Amino acid sequence: MSAEQQSGFTEIRRRGLMLVLSSPSGAGKTTISRMLRDREPDLQMSVSVTTRTKRPGEVEGIDYHFIPKIEFELRRNRKELLEWAKVFGHYYGTPRAPVDAALAEGRDILFDIDWQGTQQLKEHARQDLVAVFILPPSMLELERRLKSRAQDSAAEVARRMAKATDEMSHWAEYDYIIVNRDLASSLEQVHAILRAERLRRERQVGLNDFVKGLRAGL
Amino acid sequence: MSAEQQSGFTEIRRRGLMLVLSSPSGAGKTTISRMLRDREPDLQMSVSVTTRTKRPGEVEGIDYHFIPKIEFELRRNRKELLEWAKVFGHYYGTPRAPVDAALAEGRDILFDIDWQGTQQLKEHARQDLVAVFILPPSMLELERRLKSRAQDSAAEVARRMAKATDEMSHWAEYDYIIVNRDLASSLEQVHAILRAERLRRERQVGLNDFVKGLRAGL
Repeated sequence: MSAEQQSGFTEIRRRGLMLVLSSPSGAGKTTISRMLRDREPDLQMSVSVTTRTKRPGEVEGIDYHFIPKIEFELRRNRKELLEWAKVFGHYYGTPRAPVDAALAEGRDILFDIDWQGTQQLKEHARQDLVAVFILPPSMLELERRLKSRAQDSAAEVARRMAKATDEMSHWAEYDYIIVNRDLASSLEQVHAILRAERLRRERQVGLNDFVKGLRAGL
Repeated sequence: MSAEQQSGFTEIRRRGLMLVLSSPSGAGKTTISRMLRDREPDLQMSVSVTTRTKRPGEVEGIDYHFIPKIEFELRRNRKELLEWAKVFGHYYGTPRAPVDAALAEGRDILFDIDWQGTQQLKEHARQDLVAVFILPPSMLELERRLKSRAQDSAAEVARRMAKATDEMSHWAEYDYIIVNRDLASSLEQVHAILRAERLRRERQVGLNDFVKGLRAGL
């Protein structure tokens, strides 16, 4: 637990939270995540394990932990994954241990996962979860953003557009909705959500003793 | 409804919210309210009706609507008040009509009310309510702040200190808790709560049609 609100007589500590950002590819989620972590260096990114091959520029342990399928299945069967999914034939999952440690120590964790992962996280940890869905302003704009990624082929763009339509049907399962018209505003909005959620009564541990102290005249 | 998130094809509008700030006198609530309204000029203050006499510097229609006891009782009996309370022998209440109008038009309203008022508002409008409790860092600091108000006598300070102890016992009925150690941080925190709560899915009207439009390829 971090000491967010200290006092001479009683310490109020904070339980960490799990900030989930979901959106179709191209809606801006990855850029917003990066900018948010620049502002909040203590915000830890959850690093997923995956069985897909590394893309150019990706770094083991930063973007993903790249593991063989047999290891993935072993960890999944041992319940060491908080959530997992199969997307385009590859497995993706979230290791449980680093998340549990961070929450207990009052550190927040950022998740860049899809609606399937979010649903599974909800089952495990509803009270620690803050789920944000980012929508594109229009499909034309989404397509423009996907096409500007030099690395993706026309077939990949078409596949992502189709997947976007599916992904967006799950917006109503999220706590907060942001339409990403410009990055600066969207970043401010996600940041406000993070800062506000930290102040929720349930996340502040020791408030009861703090107020007892006040009421005793301290 | 205000047009917060506009688009060429579907408009997302927003339902207003009721932001309640409660705290013992001297914890900083009134100063934070004033600073927040400087930043958010569209944030409307709920003006209560009261049967107590005007204090030096108070303005009819700004600080309160000062009305006779018989009128208060009439309005209360006609259910024209969203909440009401008797404090130190005087009646205080919140007129219902301006609140209903503001929420429907997407304007937010700020309430500076005590725990009794908050409880009554919760019964009427739980989904529109965002309740924030502001705690002083210590009772010594609270007393110092109360004593620095030239207008209050020693007896008044003593009475407010006693009332603070009672008021603070209701902290757990609030959504968010802020310990006001310095005004600048507390203002940032309340502002983050307001901005985040505006993005809650339930407050954005028209999202369903907006996403339908996106999924249809717009």
